[in-house]
Amino acid sequence: MTNRRTTTHHSIALIPGDGIGNEVIPAARRVLDTVAARHGLGFTYETYDWSCERYADLGAMMPDDGLDQLRGHDAILLGAVGYPGVPDHVSLWGLLIPIRRGFQQYVNLRPIRVFEGVPSPLRGAGPGDVDLVVVRENVEGEYGEIGGRLGRGLPEEMAVQEAVFTRKGVTRVLDYAFSLAERRGGHVTSATKSNGIIHTMPFWDELVAERAAAHPEVAWDQEHIDALAAKFVLDPRRFDVVVASNLFGDILSDLAAAVAGSIGIAPAANLNPERDFPSMFEPVHGSAPDIAGRGIANPLGAIWSAAMMLDHLGHPEAAARVTDAIATVLAKTPVRTPDLGGTATTEEFTDALLEVLG
Amino acid sequence: MTNRRTTTHHSIALIPGDGIGNEVIPAARRVLDTVAARHGLGFTYETYDWSCERYADLGAMMPDDGLDQLRGHDAILLGAVGYPGVPDHVSLWGLLIPIRRGFQQYVNLRPIRVFEGVPSPLRGAGPGDVDLVVVRENVEGEYGEIGGRLGRGLPEEMAVQEAVFTRKGVTRVLDYAFSLAERRGGHVTSATKSNGIIHTMPFWDELVAERAAAHPEVAWDQEHIDALAAKFVLDPRRFDVVVASNLFGDILSDLAAAVAGSIGIAPAANLNPERDFPSMFEPVHGSAPDIAGRGIANPLGAIWSAAMMLDHLGHPEAAARVTDAIATVLAKTPVRTPDLGGTATTEEFTDALLEVLG
Ligand SMILES: CC(C)[C@H](C(=O)O)[C@@H](O)C(=O)O
Ligand SMILES: CC(C)[C@H](C(=O)O)[C@@H](O)C(=O)O
Repeated sequence: MTNRRTTTHHSIALIPGDGIGNEVIPAARRVLDTVAARHGLGFTYETYDWSCERYADLGAMMPDDGLDQLRGHDAILLGAVGYPGVPDHVSLWGLLIPIRRGFQQYVNLRPIRVFEGVPSPLRGAGPGDVDLVVVRENVEGEYGEIGGRLGRGLPEEMAVQEAVFTRKGVTRVLDYAFSLAERRGGHVTSATKSNGIIHTMPFWDELVAERAAAHPEVAWDQEHIDALAAKFVLDPRRFDVVVASNLFGDILSDLAAAVAGSIGIAPAANLNPERDFPSMFEPVHGSAPDIAGRGIANPLGAIWSAAMMLDHLGHPEAAARVTDAIATVLAKTPVRTPDLGGTATTEEFTDALLEVLG
Repeated sequence: MTNRRTTTHHSIALIPGDGIGNEVIPAARRVLDTVAARHGLGFTYETYDWSCERYADLGAMMPDDGLDQLRGHDAILLGAVGYPGVPDHVSLWGLLIPIRRGFQQYVNLRPIRVFEGVPSPLRGAGPGDVDLVVVRENVEGEYGEIGGRLGRGLPEEMAVQEAVFTRKGVTRVLDYAFSLAERRGGHVTSATKSNGIIHTMPFWDELVAERAAAHPEVAWDQEHIDALAAKFVLDPRRFDVVVASNLFGDILSDLAAAVAGSIGIAPAANLNPERDFPSMFEPVHGSAPDIAGRGIANPLGAIWSAAMMLDHLGHPEAAARVTDAIATVLAKTPVRTPDLGGTATTEEFTDALLEVLG
């Protein structure tokens, strides 16, 4: 894949996955096609049936040459993976995680906003009050292949997990975060835990100080993860760009989405900023087997993820058009899927959004 | 130390530590003495000046034989450690953590309640709505001595941290949690992350299922840490006993305290349930150098911690008397320290509490 920032035609890999993934990806595609028509863009889609269903049939979530099949696309739009009976570590380690790691998608970007029309559970937080982005390190850190068990079943049994933080891996995600804060005219908060006995965290702090010095125009501070989680609840307004390790970012992004009342609509981008490989866009929600097949899934997470994809592909106006339409449909119409207290189907909600999109 | 459950006289080690630790421990002591008089108990105190100040003078937070000095006491009441200029990992690894680990205080117990008179930041949460206990594994897991750096300053530099979970270590804290839920007539939620690439977590899940089978009368479920953090905000009422690894419990207990509006008043017990060693009781708050020396620190965290100590020493009625007095003074009087919006000093607030205590 080459840098296609300036081109207008893009080849997109769609991986609807399991459950409601199959309902929200078609909705996102309708939005993409509408926006494409308005902004002179063109999308070619290739759909991959990689899923727990495929695992049940063939014993693998994706084919051996899966990454090679994806490599030629400009971006990947993924629905959700997971199905009762298939252990999460099978479904995720067999699809989501190999893509993130194989394509060096080392930034997991999660914007969080309070929208008018979607109340925050916090007393004090209204629309506009919370507008932050979690920048999560996505390919190393606390999650990794180095670990296992000793003495299975014995009294002295143990399991170990090695967290590995590299100068290269931490530096690049920090640089992304500082540059993003600069573009936003904002500031950076680093999530740490250098006061507990975690030898990786004083190292993280040192690198933060180093990268901060390289971005002298960006203000920054740091908080221990326990205190930071508390502050997300007590004073979410004070945050702009929050940069965190793989595990801390995972926790903080879900927490922030809950604080904003938007857990079901949160998007995520798994970015390879150098564009050496395709990036992947996916709603944060899961496959929701309990409501799958009923056509009532909320497509906003997938649609917002598609907007992030537009931005990454070099079309910020088209992206803003979609996020503006999301804000408008929530603020100005009562149309909602059941998770937000409405009765609209996925299709009806998407219709309403397309109408706003014009 | 022997099992003194049934004795009425106890020897207590006081470690006020730094900053406001020196203000809240005397307040807790006043409360203990008042309760002792009413319940026929007697306390002998020995005060240790172990602190960052001591570190500045003598180069160590505590003497080499510190643990031996503490060993003969029935319990330890600690204020707070930490001072600007002394790196956290010096102050904490030099005092708090050696005590927790050396005395096998493998349960870190953190009760969280919404009190009448201390509003929760959540729209929907009123007094009585949140009443949960985080049971945190306190001596192994993600925090530990196995870790370090390679290639300091080089481009290929890295830092690693090994998380070690043992069958023995996990089993005992799970058993504590299930027994506690049984005593409370409640249920257990296990914090996990077995869907990411953390090899220790499927092991944790297996042990949870094992211990749950050994406590068939206790209902239980489990949640991934990211989703769990979100649910603490979206629906804190549904939790009773939450059992978690060292790191997850650290995060969840601060988060829950924030959700309950009580971060400044939260207590913690570091328990050695077998009573082979003294247990340690400490407010969750830090040394607060910004307000230290002004006599306005909120003593509730220390006082509530002292109540947990009374309970551990075998005096549940005396403990309940203190927590009831805390609830009453907050609900029925306007007396508050500045952190809760009042103007009372530490001493004035303690006076008001003692009056309620009668
Ligand atoms: C101060 C720090 C080492 C400690 C911990 O992480 O255990 C603190 O956060 C706590 O929760 O008691
Ligand atoms: C499903 C799981 C492996 C994943 C993660 O932990 O990365 C998810 O929680 C996420 O945040 O995308």
